[in-house]
Amino acid sequence: MPVVESEDINWASGYPFPKAVPVEGMSRAWRQLMAGRDQAFQYLGARGQGYLRDWVMERTRDLRLAEDDFILTMGAIQGIDLAVRAVVDPGQSIVVQSPTYMEALEVFQNYTAHIVGVPLENRRFPIETVRRIIYQQKQAGHPVAAIYWQADFQNPTGVTTGLADRRALVELAAENGVWLIEDAAYRDLSFGEPLTSLKTLSSDSPVIHLGTLSKTVGPGLRIGWAVGSRHVVQAMDRMKKDLGHPLSEALVGEWLHDTDYAAHLQSLRASYQQRAEAMAQALDPLKEQGLIFESATGGYFMWLDLPEPWTSDSFTAQVRQRQLVVLSGRHFLLPGVADPRAVRVSFSYAPLTTFSEGARRLGETLKEATQGAEGRGLDG
Amino acid sequence: MPVVESEDINWASGYPFPKAVPVEGMSRAWRQLMAGRDQAFQYLGARGQGYLRDWVMERTRDLRLAEDDFILTMGAIQGIDLAVRAVVDPGQSIVVQSPTYMEALEVFQNYTAHIVGVPLENRRFPIETVRRIIYQQKQAGHPVAAIYWQADFQNPTGVTTGLADRRALVELAAENGVWLIEDAAYRDLSFGEPLTSLKTLSSDSPVIHLGTLSKTVGPGLRIGWAVGSRHVVQAMDRMKKDLGHPLSEALVGEWLHDTDYAAHLQSLRASYQQRAEAMAQALDPLKEQGLIFESATGGYFMWLDLPEPWTSDSFTAQVRQRQLVVLSGRHFLLPGVADPRAVRVSFSYAPLTTFSEGARRLGETLKEATQGAEGRGLDG
Repeated sequence: MPVVESEDINWASGYPFPKAVPVEGMSRAWRQLMAGRDQAFQYLGARGQGYLRDWVMERTRDLRLAEDDFILTMGAIQGIDLAVRAVVDPGQSIVVQSPTYMEALEVFQNYTAHIVGVPLENRRFPIETVRRIIYQQKQAGHPVAAIYWQADFQNPTGVTTGLADRRALVELAAENGVWLIEDAAYRDLSFGEPLTSLKTLSSDSPVIHLGTLSKTVGPGLRIGWAVGSRHVVQAMDRMKKDLGHPLSEALVGEWLHDTDYAAHLQSLRASYQQRAEAMAQALDPLKEQGLIFESATGGYFMWLDLPEPWTSDSFTAQVRQRQLVVLSGRHFLLPGVADPRAVRVSFSYAPLTTFSEGARRLGETLKEATQGAEGRGLDG
Repeated sequence: MPVVESEDINWASGYPFPKAVPVEGMSRAWRQLMAGRDQAFQYLGARGQGYLRDWVMERTRDLRLAEDDFILTMGAIQGIDLAVRAVVDPGQSIVVQSPTYMEALEVFQNYTAHIVGVPLENRRFPIETVRRIIYQQKQAGHPVAAIYWQADFQNPTGVTTGLADRRALVELAAENGVWLIEDAAYRDLSFGEPLTSLKTLSSDSPVIHLGTLSKTVGPGLRIGWAVGSRHVVQAMDRMKKDLGHPLSEALVGEWLHDTDYAAHLQSLRASYQQRAEAMAQALDPLKEQGLIFESATGGYFMWLDLPEPWTSDSFTAQVRQRQLVVLSGRHFLLPGVADPRAVRVSFSYAPLTTFSEGARRLGETLKEATQGAEGRGLDG
């Protein structure tokens, strides 16, 4: 992450906005937890841990087949790490969306040198490309073992995989004996209808589904879960030698026990939708200056395609001069991949009051480049 | 861990006793943390995280050489996991004390099939045996990459490695290019003089030192650290893709900021010493029935050698019938290793008021076996 100074407008951080975090509720949960004295500070035994487990069991019920199981993880990222360790050998390949969640790329690079991206084309990650990569990597002696996919409001692009593509992806995985690692971090933040999980499209369980409370409660709590066939979940559990996280699990469990989570989600969705719409509205006039984007339908992010002669990095640096922080599209790519000429902006965290001023700074920057390109021959 | 019922006397759990956990102090820290509103629930930014990092930097200063660095870990166990991943290849061997910390053995088995134990002999883990194993494993094509060692009040035996043996171990590691993973979980709980860390005996850094607050504050917080040469610590950091644990780190940081930790430790040491002496005193009469043990000089545990015809498991099961829970010595061994005919008892957690009654139950059990062995030909 770039350094953000207090006077900057921060459209970079993929955090929930401050009031989305249930600080009062967590303080109530803390006081209840402390009624159990030392228990939450020991390895086991605080009742909140049981509440959390029961809650995750209930929450993932519709995702699980008869032979499925689940484990708690530290956010989705530990689930990604454990899933890869359980199903990918070093000589095998992993298919990713390109761009994709940067932390996941860093995890994958710990385990294999064979990571192949499916480039974004017209705001879609084509399943045909996945099919081609599976074939090519097999020919090359590095068969694909896993596909890492965010189907819902993907980080960083906000792109959602359509139902037909979801079905095609699950079939492709099943046909080829490839694991699908479904990172559903943003799944609960749909502004419209709920989306169909890849996991529920699979009748023979080639999907490892990863969920998290990072986006809907707070990432600092580090609570997530992984759901999949018992065999693979047990393999992940054997690798998960961290003794869990009793204090955090118990705290969140106590909070969930006394929270109407459906109402909490409903309120969050309304807030994020309002934010997404406000940012799209603020940015709308910049389409005339060549900025291309689509309104978000869920999640935290928008992906702004930039006009020539900008590069992702030059634009990011230039708006940074105007004290607006965004993330360069290059940040979400493997080394050596062509510049997407785009930036990620987050509508999740910055105050709503920064949206028009942020848009103004983006506009000034775009204008400057056009003038620069015309007047001084700037070509990126 | 065995199931412990509420009416049982629990000499099994390696927990701090309830009043050793600073519940009030943590609640004060919580309130201070909440003054920062959502910050501790986000990925970064709560001031307690900075306090914790500064505190660990100061606390490990005497352990670090010029080129050394440190990272925070989830207790010592994540440090063990990351250290092994950084320095051990699957074809290589790990040397362990035998018996040793069971969770560490489970970690090691995820990475190599070549784990070799140094058996306890006369309450000492002979360094000569380490030397022989290094030679043998090299001959067998599975060179030793790391030695995992608890030099201070080892779990489960309570055995402390003497200074001459510490020097010999560090030299042996350096001579053979073998990493020493020093698990110093109980280091701060010495009833006498402070012990010399393996890390400070090493001038060329073949030691990865692991520390934790699990035994001195609370294991549920999951706060530990790893110290070693920058190169290996960076390798561990690359594997540590969990995004840290902001809430817990910030909470503990706030607590440390307002705590006289030296006084906290002094008070803990006095309490554990009192507990250790009380348990030794309670068990002393059982020496006449063939029980062999030494008084603890620090840490949480005593190791009770049993008379024939007991096995570790049969004795554990038999005292369990009398509602006393101890851990069988077998629990701390690799499969296939000879029964140590011993049990681990913890003086750290159970109420002091259980010590004489627990000793009475042990004595009854010992008596019964002797009678049984004489009267009914019981031979284990």
